Amino acid sequence: MRQLRLIALPGMPMVQPGDDLARLIREALARAGTRLQPGDVLVVAQKVVSKSEGRHARLAEVTPSGQAREIAASTGKDARLVELILSESREVLRTRPNLVIVVHRLGYVMANAGIDASNVEAQEGDPRVLLLPRDPDASCRRLRDELARTAGVAPTVIINDSVGRAWRQGTVGTALGAAGLPALMDLRGQPDLFERPLQVTQVGLADEIAAAASLLQGQAAEGTPVVLVRGLDLPAAEGGADVLVRPAADDLFR
Amino acid sequence: MRQLRLIALPGMPMVQPGDDLARLIREALARAGTRLQPGDVLVVAQKVVSKSEGRHARLAEVTPSGQAREIAASTGKDARLVELILSESREVLRTRPNLVIVVHRLGYVMANAGIDASNVEAQEGDPRVLLLPRDPDASCRRLRDELARTAGVAPTVIINDSVGRAWRQGTVGTALGAAGLPALMDLRGQPDLFERPLQVTQVGLADEIAAAASLLQGQAAEGTPVVLVRGLDLPAAEGGADVLVRPAADDLFR
Repeated sequence: MRQLRLIALPGMPMVQPGDDLARLIREALARAGTRLQPGDVLVVAQKVVSKSEGRHARLAEVTPSGQAREIAASTGKDARLVELILSESREVLRTRPNLVIVVHRLGYVMANAGIDASNVEAQEGDPRVLLLPRDPDASCRRLRDELARTAGVAPTVIINDSVGRAWRQGTVGTALGAAGLPALMDLRGQPDLFERPLQVTQVGLADEIAAAASLLQGQAAEGTPVVLVRGLDLPAAEGGADVLVRPAADDLFR
Repeated sequence: MRQLRLIALPGMPMVQPGDDLARLIREALARAGTRLQPGDVLVVAQKVVSKSEGRHARLAEVTPSGQAREIAASTGKDARLVELILSESREVLRTRPNLVIVVHRLGYVMANAGIDASNVEAQEGDPRVLLLPRDPDASCRRLRDELARTAGVAPTVIINDSVGRAWRQGTVGTALGAAGLPALMDLRGQPDLFERPLQVTQVGLADEIAAAASLLQGQAAEGTPVVLVRGLDLPAAEGGADVLVRPAADDLFR
């Protein structure tokens, strides 16, 4: 009987720049009464990775460009925030009041380039926001390697974030980075129940895991940014989540 | 410590038209050594719901329209299949070789209107395909009510399918129907960790559950179409999955 367990690791502290996430995760695993086992997957919320990497930006230090001021005027957003969004983006796809949808420099299509102003400490009169990690796949590899070194098991690591979608309402947990799994699982050629080859089917495996973990991470004051997923029988792979980004040339909807 | 368990219910038989899914699920729960508990969620693959509802179509009985023949010529698809796709759709959004993306009559944006030719028995020379359930939300409500009547507990029920996306490669499990949960969970106004109200956040809760279950359902010959999800602390609601469909007028990407 195939089973999956997802465990929200308890007692993770507020993460600060420079914090050793691998150590915090090992301690949280111990609090959960477990340790890493072969095949384990760790899903880490983007915010804590960004915080540990010091990806904060102070709006007071940002000088908006002309383009940023124009978009700010048409959307009602803070021009300094728009400037940060542009600096993190390849291309602006759509703007509407209070909405800027861009292609992030790493290819994700997202509102606000994933920059978040919630759950970030605002110093009095000095608002700070949090950018996405510089290279989420690299962050995952580092965390995987560091846990392999210090815990003796190399887990699959996924960084997830709640991301909006075309066509459907509501955000879903999505894999921004990954290490140690085939993030895009190719089922082409596997036989179906009647032994005929399946038509082309590629499954966004890392995104499905990211969405599953998101069910336990919550959005607001729950404070459980790391979820252990146990029981997935993943094929070995070194790959990252970059393969989940559809190349612009193949995308019919932008 | 918050935990989720997902269990792929073992021994589900090949489903035939007219089969009593509630009974098959009760029997599979018993094989798994459990019974329904308050708060349980059952995720049922679209294919078995469609099969139980007899949503097969024989291509030999389909006469393609002129529009279907045109799209067939430009995509290389069978004109009778295209006719079925059109009959299940409101609007054709994009066509490319071997690809027809439509707005399904219930609002889902999908390739082929969700019509599937894999895992459907082909009689010799008489190929059959499988359409989506007529009304997945209604199918979920019926299953929920029937299980409440016969098992004494009304589970949340979700019908999921693997669906492609804009911007990202790979399909992800997606909720076509639901009963008994807030499929779109509104987090607007909940405080964040610093007691400031969150900005607008609506989570596609039923889609995240659908994606999680998809990890255990597989795509090919695994034969585990029903997944029990235990440990979600869902607020009570009667709602269906229709709220996840973004109205065309609000959609910036079609």
